[in-house]
Amino acid sequence: MLVESLSQPPVATRRLHVIGIGAGAVSFVTAEAAAAIADTDVFVVIDKGADKADLVGVRRESLDRFAGSKPFRVVVVEDGRRDDRLPYDEAVARWHAARVAEFERVLADEVVEGEVAGILVWGDPSLYDSTLRIIDQVNDRGRVRVEHTVLPGISSIQVLAARHRIPLNRIGGSVLITTGRRLRDGLPDGVDDVVVMLDAETSFRALLGEDFEIFWGAYLGSPDEVLISGPLDDVADEIVRVRAEARAAKGWMFDTYLLRRLSS
Amino acid sequence: MLVESLSQPPVATRRLHVIGIGAGAVSFVTAEAAAAIADTDVFVVIDKGADKADLVGVRRESLDRFAGSKPFRVVVVEDGRRDDRLPYDEAVARWHAARVAEFERVLADEVVEGEVAGILVWGDPSLYDSTLRIIDQVNDRGRVRVEHTVLPGISSIQVLAARHRIPLNRIGGSVLITTGRRLRDGLPDGVDDVVVMLDAETSFRALLGEDFEIFWGAYLGSPDEVLISGPLDDVADEIVRVRAEARAAKGWMFDTYLLRRLSS
Repeated sequence: MLVESLSQPPVATRRLHVIGIGAGAVSFVTAEAAAAIADTDVFVVIDKGADKADLVGVRRESLDRFAGSKPFRVVVVEDGRRDDRLPYDEAVARWHAARVAEFERVLADEVVEGEVAGILVWGDPSLYDSTLRIIDQVNDRGRVRVEHTVLPGISSIQVLAARHRIPLNRIGGSVLITTGRRLRDGLPDGVDDVVVMLDAETSFRALLGEDFEIFWGAYLGSPDEVLISGPLDDVADEIVRVRAEARAAKGWMFDTYLLRRLSS
Repeated sequence: MLVESLSQPPVATRRLHVIGIGAGAVSFVTAEAAAAIADTDVFVVIDKGADKADLVGVRRESLDRFAGSKPFRVVVVEDGRRDDRLPYDEAVARWHAARVAEFERVLADEVVEGEVAGILVWGDPSLYDSTLRIIDQVNDRGRVRVEHTVLPGISSIQVLAARHRIPLNRIGGSVLITTGRRLRDGLPDGVDDVVVMLDAETSFRALLGEDFEIFWGAYLGSPDEVLISGPLDDVADEIVRVRAEARAAKGWMFDTYLLRRLSS
């Protein structure tokens, strides 16, 4: 890497705002994020396909509300797909590498020196978002030097806690933030409070019969928000049913939840 | 409790906004939090003494900036002290009970029916903040019925991640949010990424020699912000020194950090 960057110096420096816009609603945009939106000349959008049109809608609403009178452009990074004919790990690695190369190309070719680029990140860039890793990889390649600032946003788990009017932690206690996949692998010993994100498979069912309560939310912050809470054994079936119905009606699902062991 | 609330019906209903204003800077206030500030007639402030005058300053700046032209009042809940002549647990229990009673009195006597009360919470109400528990206890007492909304705010750990331009989790990984006290008791098996809050004792030293890196920040979001990162064994002494100097100069310290095991 060092050798490459010596023999092939950066062709360009690009300023970039990584802007957390919060989860689900324009009302979660911070004053600082609004200022960064207003400061941006070129918005870079990673295209995830038509599925999540509602999410794209909130992004566009953020632009309309906060961009002010300054003209701006929108450029799209085509996000490829996993080639399912390849072994899984190789398919993921190629897909991610192609995305980095395309992101680099967009910054180099579609943003002019002196302009400020911006990328709007759903929720908060610090949790389960790949934007910062992609930028680090672009910088590692050495062709474009990205100078970026990160603006935090309200994450879906904060909206979850706010809507249920609960703290995530118990007094002086810990809370683990994890994924559905890891939850199914079992909780670490001594962890009794866990927030689960990225769970496409209602993995909370793995803890049925173990005396947990659950605080669940879907489409948090949006007009379609749904909240369910109660002892896990009592409400798990209801969550599974409501979740399946909402997913079928809307075409996509975004949910998160807190599990809390009652007997701890 | 049930008997009490039957024999002694609630004397009053009070609407209350619990407003997360973010950590360290007015620029983290969300559009929704700003609207809640503008909607508030009476701000309830829990007085923590003169130590944290800078924090109170940011709260006041939030009011000045977002309260708009609507008149508002500020009422102070006197926060007592632990009576150190009593056993620790009893002293804490009495202190907390007195705070709940005083909060109830302020809502009942210093807020008029139909007015909206507001309480500004540093960072986010969902992490290591007692406001929501106090409200639940007021509702349990049954004399004042509090109808509250919670507005999430940017927490110091999100500012930490933003300033270091890192995600808190590794790809598909978990992250534990915990306290200094619990860190000193040891990490749960399999937990290699941990955010530490409420650590008055530089507890990261408990993990020296175990191949961690640290991302540390103090006074995050404020003009006095300090950031240090690197392999824990290399930078621990520097953090201890910088932290002690800043604490001595300023009279108080608020810091948080992420530890990440390198060999995992």
